[in-house]
Amino acid sequence: MTQYLLSRPHTLISLTAFAERYQSAKSSISEDLAIIKEVFEEEGIGDLQTLAGAAGGVKYMPKMRESVALDIMKEICRELEQPDRVLPGGYLYMTDMLGQPELLADVGRMFATAFADRKIDVIMTVETKGIPLAYATAACLNIPVVIVRRDNKVTEGSAVSINYVSGSTKRIQTMSLARRALKEQSRVLIIDDFMKAGGTIQGMMDLLFEFKATVAGVGVFVESGEVELEERLLEDYVSLAKLTAVDMKSKQSTVIPGNYFKA
Amino acid sequence: MTQYLLSRPHTLISLTAFAERYQSAKSSISEDLAIIKEVFEEEGIGDLQTLAGAAGGVKYMPKMRESVALDIMKEICRELEQPDRVLPGGYLYMTDMLGQPELLADVGRMFATAFADRKIDVIMTVETKGIPLAYATAACLNIPVVIVRRDNKVTEGSAVSINYVSGSTKRIQTMSLARRALKEQSRVLIIDDFMKAGGTIQGMMDLLFEFKATVAGVGVFVESGEVELEERLLEDYVSLAKLTAVDMKSKQSTVIPGNYFKA
Repeated sequence: MTQYLLSRPHTLISLTAFAERYQSAKSSISEDLAIIKEVFEEEGIGDLQTLAGAAGGVKYMPKMRESVALDIMKEICRELEQPDRVLPGGYLYMTDMLGQPELLADVGRMFATAFADRKIDVIMTVETKGIPLAYATAACLNIPVVIVRRDNKVTEGSAVSINYVSGSTKRIQTMSLARRALKEQSRVLIIDDFMKAGGTIQGMMDLLFEFKATVAGVGVFVESGEVELEERLLEDYVSLAKLTAVDMKSKQSTVIPGNYFKA
Repeated sequence: MTQYLLSRPHTLISLTAFAERYQSAKSSISEDLAIIKEVFEEEGIGDLQTLAGAAGGVKYMPKMRESVALDIMKEICRELEQPDRVLPGGYLYMTDMLGQPELLADVGRMFATAFADRKIDVIMTVETKGIPLAYATAACLNIPVVIVRRDNKVTEGSAVSINYVSGSTKRIQTMSLARRALKEQSRVLIIDDFMKAGGTIQGMMDLLFEFKATVAGVGVFVESGEVELEERLLEDYVSLAKLTAVDMKSKQSTVIPGNYFKA
């Protein structure tokens, strides 16, 4: 049963389904669930929500305790501070880290915890580096992902394109999303790997407006603090880490846990 | 313990670690592991490998029983056959399906089963649609992912680029990979969403050659059977589904389970 629940996060499973699957009485299933709930809470891996009534059942919501998250994030920050990660333009090389399944699972769980109470239909990101973070979060929340492309590929059918100005580089860029990729009125969680002024995320918001969709939340892995306040396009977002200083000459950078840990 | 194992696939965990974590004798840990092993095998969700000796321990290898995989794949094939999925050029629209966490978890588990016995250091894919499949597989095998880009972004540092000819469209294209993304001599599993003649995958193989890396295997989600045999650039690959016929006029297509299910 533990395995069954863990592999189906944010999915309502009726007691009847469990009773049939394990050929047990509902009463003993209930008792087992109570034990599992206790263990999940003790280990800090998530909540087991019980809904009463005919349409009721039990739902596993993966979470991560804030103290555990902070410890993991401090380690990630140390790794991000490695001098060979500093790149021209105040960027950090982190593609290798975004390729590690374990780190992604941890970060996905943090985002899932941060946005657990929001009503979200779909997660949106823009290619390329935000994609693994979006999927890791989606796996915990059990909701689909749509990927905004920086070009418009033939294999997607008709698409909506918008131009946006990257806030930090001031360059005009294009992003597009297939018309059928997103239903109107969707509630969308935006996830991205790195945010400077927020131009890319603002672009995604403009695109959402074209689809009559609304923003349910914005989560970024690393935000850059190297931005003048008046340049910042976005106020309401969750960041897991914050790049507070980069010295291009010495290739030194300082990365601290993001605003998620101060809330 | 079940939860601990499930969340750490393909990771060797020593009995001592378990004994300390749960403050039990190793002998009772062993007994519990034997029960978990039995349940995992009964449910067909994977193997529990035990390694004896001082460096020993236990390792959970996520797998999917072939009969279960075939049932799931038949359903995926039916979904892929929906007439509105046929796109110009004999492609299928499947971006929405590749956004579903549950489908991805299933497909990742199939690839992980197919390549469980190979020695693999890293999974490689090319942006954009192969990425979620690569990560889903990586999560099961606990190995990192590298993403080959169709451009060369400034945030990546120095990169190796190659030109390749897409076998079906005969167009010359470019792909590149950051120099530091892949160690020399790596054993690489290539995962992609769609293969026609195999030009893109051949391109990735050429890129691997530049990195002195070797191909440990090739897995594609859907292969197109609409290719003359002499055009096929690749022989040795695993496909989960096969597009055998597309009629552009009636928008009808036929999709059957791939070569993985005939081996």
